[in-house]
Amino acid sequence: MTETFYRRMLPSDTIEFSSPLGRQLFAEALATGGLDGYFRLAEQFHTQAEPQFCGLGSLVVALNALAIDPGRRWQGVWRWFSEQLLDCCVALDQIRQRGLDLDEVACLARCNGTSVDVFRPETSDASAWRASLSAAARGEHVVIASYDRARLDQSGSGHFSPIGGYHAERDLVLILDVARFKYPPHWISAERLWQAMHAVDPATGRSRGWLALRADPQQAMRDASAVACRSAGSNADAKG
Amino acid sequence: MTETFYRRMLPSDTIEFSSPLGRQLFAEALATGGLDGYFRLAEQFHTQAEPQFCGLGSLVVALNALAIDPGRRWQGVWRWFSEQLLDCCVALDQIRQRGLDLDEVACLARCNGTSVDVFRPETSDASAWRASLSAAARGEHVVIASYDRARLDQSGSGHFSPIGGYHAERDLVLILDVARFKYPPHWISAERLWQAMHAVDPATGRSRGWLALRADPQQAMRDASAVACRSAGSNADAKG
Repeated sequence: MTETFYRRMLPSDTIEFSSPLGRQLFAEALATGGLDGYFRLAEQFHTQAEPQFCGLGSLVVALNALAIDPGRRWQGVWRWFSEQLLDCCVALDQIRQRGLDLDEVACLARCNGTSVDVFRPETSDASAWRASLSAAARGEHVVIASYDRARLDQSGSGHFSPIGGYHAERDLVLILDVARFKYPPHWISAERLWQAMHAVDPATGRSRGWLALRADPQQAMRDASAVACRSAGSNADAKG
Repeated sequence: MTETFYRRMLPSDTIEFSSPLGRQLFAEALATGGLDGYFRLAEQFHTQAEPQFCGLGSLVVALNALAIDPGRRWQGVWRWFSEQLLDCCVALDQIRQRGLDLDEVACLARCNGTSVDVFRPETSDASAWRASLSAAARGEHVVIASYDRARLDQSGSGHFSPIGGYHAERDLVLILDVARFKYPPHWISAERLWQAMHAVDPATGRSRGWLALRADPQQAMRDASAVACRSAGSNADAKG
């Protein structure tokens, strides 16, 4: 019989959102403008639907927080983003097997109505990272970070999660971890997360990094490849 | 072709969580102890998985926020509450057809490791309601309210949602509406919600009301009927 788990303990330098210290950090960040973007994300914070769906789960949070109308039915009479609607770029059955890389998550974001900037440590620097965090804290865009959990002493390897806020004075970021069955949301050093994004993704041979997403209702329509890749994804899914 | 919807507008006396006024109310409630219980719930805020699953979706939020180990596998190696695991008391296929009533949600909560107090306006009073809200705000228990949306000028009828906080000075409650495809979380008058709980549920001929849930790891084991009702639910589901 396979061993099963009820969550994992956070490493000692990582601060649980609902702990007394986590709540103190929240109050400080709230008072200093580090959580202006938090509220829209908190409204849509979500558990990734399947164990390999951290990229898709992070997109569900981001796309619903950006108030993007998917233009397609979710369930009943409602249009809404769930992982099942994210059927462009890569077939869901492939994602179940292997997850997604940074460019694939960017592709999925673009063909679902956002404009996306892709950043990697090798072509960026720590000041760009903190500028991106500050803009996310102000609610100007949504940041999804791609990082190696092992470098944060967490259980697992490559992971995606949205960033819920930035406490600039203490240089701490709030990770809204979509693997809520494993870790609660937590505050962690922005410097450590920056280092954890340097890890090479074995699937691409390139480093991980982060995405900055903005709603762009014209994006899906302008990007002719979106429809093509959605069809490709659906076909591949049907074959899979 | 059926008309579909992207969300609904909140009534004008209802304040969206992420709006400027919503954020002001949040900061006020945070400073006055009205959101001590918020953080655990925010960690687990969730979209009900199906249109009839507001009762189950509210329980998923509550049970995960109360850090109850379901003792059964969710997906992969993880034990975690999703709607699919809530298979006692009433079969999922029946819930898909007709939803749940207040006593059934209480039954489901009990056979999943909580102790539950059930309140109805006809056997309670407004001071008990506000005492329950205050205890929820302090994080002493989780409140799930059962109410008629029509009495709040919202779209729809009977609904369940967890309560995320209580701003006592302004007598406003924070509803963490699990139908996130319809309404974002919102602040609303505790008095209006009290009145909306007086509505009679046609399924039972009794008023709606609210539940106060506490983690009670011994509950599932002590309650011999839990196992029996889980089996009954599973059998009914298989027949359905």
